[in-house]
Amino acid sequence: MARPLLDFWFDFASTYSYPAVMRIRPLAGAAGVDVRFRPFLLGVIFKAQGWDTSPFNLYPAKGRNMWRDLERLCADLSLPFVRPNPFPQNSLLAARVALAVPETRRADFCRAVFRAEFAEGRRIDQPETIGAILAGLNIDAAAMLAAAQTDAIKNSLRSETAEAERLGVFGAPTFLIADGELFWGNDRLERALAWANRGG
Amino acid sequence: MARPLLDFWFDFASTYSYPAVMRIRPLAGAAGVDVRFRPFLLGVIFKAQGWDTSPFNLYPAKGRNMWRDLERLCADLSLPFVRPNPFPQNSLLAARVALAVPETRRADFCRAVFRAEFAEGRRIDQPETIGAILAGLNIDAAAMLAAAQTDAIKNSLRSETAEAERLGVFGAPTFLIADGELFWGNDRLERALAWANRGG
Repeated sequence: MARPLLDFWFDFASTYSYPAVMRIRPLAGAAGVDVRFRPFLLGVIFKAQGWDTSPFNLYPAKGRNMWRDLERLCADLSLPFVRPNPFPQNSLLAARVALAVPETRRADFCRAVFRAEFAEGRRIDQPETIGAILAGLNIDAAAMLAAAQTDAIKNSLRSETAEAERLGVFGAPTFLIADGELFWGNDRLERALAWANRGG
Repeated sequence: MARPLLDFWFDFASTYSYPAVMRIRPLAGAAGVDVRFRPFLLGVIFKAQGWDTSPFNLYPAKGRNMWRDLERLCADLSLPFVRPNPFPQNSLLAARVALAVPETRRADFCRAVFRAEFAEGRRIDQPETIGAILAGLNIDAAAMLAAAQTDAIKNSLRSETAEAERLGVFGAPTFLIADGELFWGNDRLERALAWANRGG
């Protein structure tokens, strides 16, 4: 019988995607669920509903609580945490490179980007940062950075973002099960994995 | 030593306040934490940031997910669930009456209102519904409905709402600890109780 599959939709700038990316491998492994990492551009979906930046910037009380909440969550998980500056980071380059990287290395690349951004406070919009991350994973950095600028990869990210919107994704992280069940937020990871397993 | 205290801020129209109201008594009891029920008008705070209805109505994809998520949560908790119609309910009368009711009966009254609204699909903006709830709790319904229309109670609700905003409350339910630590959302109830106990 095929293992259950969970689509993990996230944006590299998304704050709660950081603990989700760091937690998903061991939890999915224990649950026997395969995970597909699907980066997209949440900013495009926000723009369609009239937001020109993160709601955490637009609504300051909500933003203040998010930073404090994330700090508490990371402390409980023993995850280092640095607040990205600027916030949100421009996630376009990282998302394109993630789609250029071979699928078997995509999860490793994504984890390394989140670590650079939220544990080390590095700027993920800079080719030097992304190049160093690729080199650290023994992936050809020059080739990937070049691929990220091709129409094929640009179109691939556009179509992934359009697909996320079509599926009802409105925030990140979002966990989608093959039966269409949608779970939003790092807090829902465990429930999403349990749901994926129901059909398994 | 005094028992730790948690302020439980909620709006009677708030969807995730329903599971929180139903869960808080046994969980707080087990944690040895005293809880103050503090109803306020979230709509006033929403209006100040430019929203004229619930964000779940303003952002349809977010709203669709909220209803499905709440349905799943209630099923897991074995809580009956009916989607209120209209949504959001006007919570003004219920909030005023909650402040008129003697403090020792306030939590019982609040639970009964949420049950009427989310388990039985009754309209909580109608004096008949609120009167029947009061009578069912052996509280003088006529006296409470009259008190709810006095300036003293109207001002009390205004000042509670202003206090919520001053404290940084931007959504419901919100759990506030005496040291100023703020936890937002039904998902954070357990963490808020653990935090309250740290100082205890």
